[in-house]
Amino acid sequence: MTSTIDQHTAADAVTRVHEAGGAAKVAAKQLAVLTRADKDAALHALADALLTATGRIVAANDSDLLRGRESGMPEGLQDRLRLTPDRVSGIAEALRQLAGLPDPIGDVVRGSTLANGLQLRQVRVPMGVIGMVYEARPNVTVDAAGLGLKSGNAMILRGGSAAADTNRVIVDVLRNALQTQGIPADAVQLLDGGHEDVDALITARGLIDLVIPRGSDRLIQAVVQGATVPVIETGVGNCHVYVDAAADVEQAVAIVLNSKTHRPSVCNAAESLLVHRDIADTVLPQLYDALTSAQVALHTDGRASEIAGRSSTPYAPATEADFAAEYLDLEMSVAVVDDLDAAIAHIDRYGSGHTEVIVTGDRAAARAFVAQVDAAVVTVNASSRFTDGGEFGFGAEIGISTQKLHARGPMGLQELTSTKWVVEGDGQTR
Amino acid sequence: MTSTIDQHTAADAVTRVHEAGGAAKVAAKQLAVLTRADKDAALHALADALLTATGRIVAANDSDLLRGRESGMPEGLQDRLRLTPDRVSGIAEALRQLAGLPDPIGDVVRGSTLANGLQLRQVRVPMGVIGMVYEARPNVTVDAAGLGLKSGNAMILRGGSAAADTNRVIVDVLRNALQTQGIPADAVQLLDGGHEDVDALITARGLIDLVIPRGSDRLIQAVVQGATVPVIETGVGNCHVYVDAAADVEQAVAIVLNSKTHRPSVCNAAESLLVHRDIADTVLPQLYDALTSAQVALHTDGRASEIAGRSSTPYAPATEADFAAEYLDLEMSVAVVDDLDAAIAHIDRYGSGHTEVIVTGDRAAARAFVAQVDAAVVTVNASSRFTDGGEFGFGAEIGISTQKLHARGPMGLQELTSTKWVVEGDGQTR
Repeated sequence: MTSTIDQHTAADAVTRVHEAGGAAKVAAKQLAVLTRADKDAALHALADALLTATGRIVAANDSDLLRGRESGMPEGLQDRLRLTPDRVSGIAEALRQLAGLPDPIGDVVRGSTLANGLQLRQVRVPMGVIGMVYEARPNVTVDAAGLGLKSGNAMILRGGSAAADTNRVIVDVLRNALQTQGIPADAVQLLDGGHEDVDALITARGLIDLVIPRGSDRLIQAVVQGATVPVIETGVGNCHVYVDAAADVEQAVAIVLNSKTHRPSVCNAAESLLVHRDIADTVLPQLYDALTSAQVALHTDGRASEIAGRSSTPYAPATEADFAAEYLDLEMSVAVVDDLDAAIAHIDRYGSGHTEVIVTGDRAAARAFVAQVDAAVVTVNASSRFTDGGEFGFGAEIGISTQKLHARGPMGLQELTSTKWVVEGDGQTR
Repeated sequence: MTSTIDQHTAADAVTRVHEAGGAAKVAAKQLAVLTRADKDAALHALADALLTATGRIVAANDSDLLRGRESGMPEGLQDRLRLTPDRVSGIAEALRQLAGLPDPIGDVVRGSTLANGLQLRQVRVPMGVIGMVYEARPNVTVDAAGLGLKSGNAMILRGGSAAADTNRVIVDVLRNALQTQGIPADAVQLLDGGHEDVDALITARGLIDLVIPRGSDRLIQAVVQGATVPVIETGVGNCHVYVDAAADVEQAVAIVLNSKTHRPSVCNAAESLLVHRDIADTVLPQLYDALTSAQVALHTDGRASEIAGRSSTPYAPATEADFAAEYLDLEMSVAVVDDLDAAIAHIDRYGSGHTEVIVTGDRAAARAFVAQVDAAVVTVNASSRFTDGGEFGFGAEIGISTQKLHARGPMGLQELTSTKWVVEGDGQTR
């Protein structure tokens, strides 16, 4: 019986997703030919509509929060889920900022005229239909809708079920506002069925051009394992700061502290500290003082433990799991390495390919680190926290890609586009 | 019993592929930092080694061909498998041409200096380890090895088993030649176990950065369905030529004939002809004459059949399957459409997103077709056969992508690269 019901549910989900995908495809054709002026006007209209609907949105959010509290949702998650009038206003403002960004669609990426007179140009076009699978963060619903609209893509959104009421109201508001602008409502759709909806979405080949999972490692891996449509993985960050023998000590302390503590819960926060043995005795006591004062718990290898012991810094011996951990909290693994090569080897082994930092005054060491470390972002003498679409000047970001295909690092509007070759001739044949 | 054996075989394949992937990853680190001069010298060395080994290669190929004939391999496939001394020399020459192409690695794609003084640049880097799954075409083995080397990627090759002996000798020759150049042999590896090897390859997350399937629709779909590593789909082409009301008749005939008959077995050959109803009576009889003279069998819709009947052109009524078919042969579906929109709708429904051609003298029609048709290449007044890395001036191609992620259209060296952001500061924190 159960399996029959499951099959029905799965079949229903496939039908539902295929209907949504078909409608999105029709909408995407219209989005693809909108001018920038049309899209920017619509973004302002979406912002206005969200502000007008603040009461409805906050009420729906209250109901999600109540359900969350009743089911024991941790305070951190409640905070990510929570929308206040101020937050709604901030989300609306982000849409207006998107309106101010250049439109990537229609950009000519490259072009040439061939010997036979054919004129070639590679032009940026929308992806088409993008599926987003994410957790209970209602701001992502609006961001994704806005980024999708500006880049000419129809979005099928699948937010965490804990935000179901909030998302339903937000998407309703956005769809109505789109229609007043003469843009098809199906440019933004919400999937709010069970997990079968996700399975149907990530296997809807021919209907969905791209799926972007955003959230926990578990969510991302589930999407990647099950998907047959193209996927861009976002964001697990086991980021390292390597303090080289030739580092400026003051700079090293500031960069490590900022990378670790500025916002520990995000993917570009540092999780691991590597220190060259020649500078360890000098720099580690200062780093320990700074990190301990900032309530950071340390997981240290043998040599790092020894130095901590000498200066009575509290520490726990680091395990393999510590070196691999993305703590997303006030914890950090610490290892003393013999040289630059050992630092790079450690990063190769434990890094997640997100952001890796070297602090050094040695030009050769910086060049070698930049050339040899395999990560989306390699940073010299600056905090890991700069790996961010906003900081990079993209104006908005849909996530940070840690894969090498299509997009690597912060993903803004351009990363939501594909290209099309246009070939113009006057009768050429081969 | 069988299932235990299968499990052993599968487990062996996973071990084998993980060993190959690990060795490839080590090799890839060395490839990533080679200079263009090193790589070009190595490409010439590979070409020299292939020429020297011509006798061994042709002998191995004879044994593959003998096995093929005994198992009833069609002549067309035998021809794709066959290597003669002339063909070996052509393959070697292609490596020398690769040496003449610019090196994409290290190109700065974009960059900026942020308000806080951070200097950003996005630099082209190799993908890392690329798996290729293809059929019994030994030239692909050499092309893939050469493209991989020039773009700094380690290649794990899985050719069709019908070419096993040839591939084994070729890869042996290439690996020895790499070593004489001080480049690790594991930059090029061959997987020649059973189908379990393919399954292990396309699920080796963390070891394989990209898999490119190249060959029949069946092979490509099997890889896409089973893969958990990123994939780029190549090449199914149901390409259309649409002859607009405002087409130059002579140009239309030349373009249709060339698109269909210049090399019918390849993905950029046209498979479907669409004709605007206002010009059908004028242009279809001439097109029929030309196509029939070239032995092209026609599958015509109602209105196209009627015109064929009047001029006694042989035809068969087109079915749904005909409109969807990639014949790869001297066959073509023909439909008369009411207008440009109907042509675009037909292409939307049946096209494979490869190459779509319009023949027209009407500027507005050309602009609308280019804007609205969703394909890797949209061509105005030229043959579909120009969709090709060589024709586009890429110098070499590893396939033609029909997906929208990462690469779309002919894939040359640049499409085998990823990027890395390099951030340089002098102590910046947030």
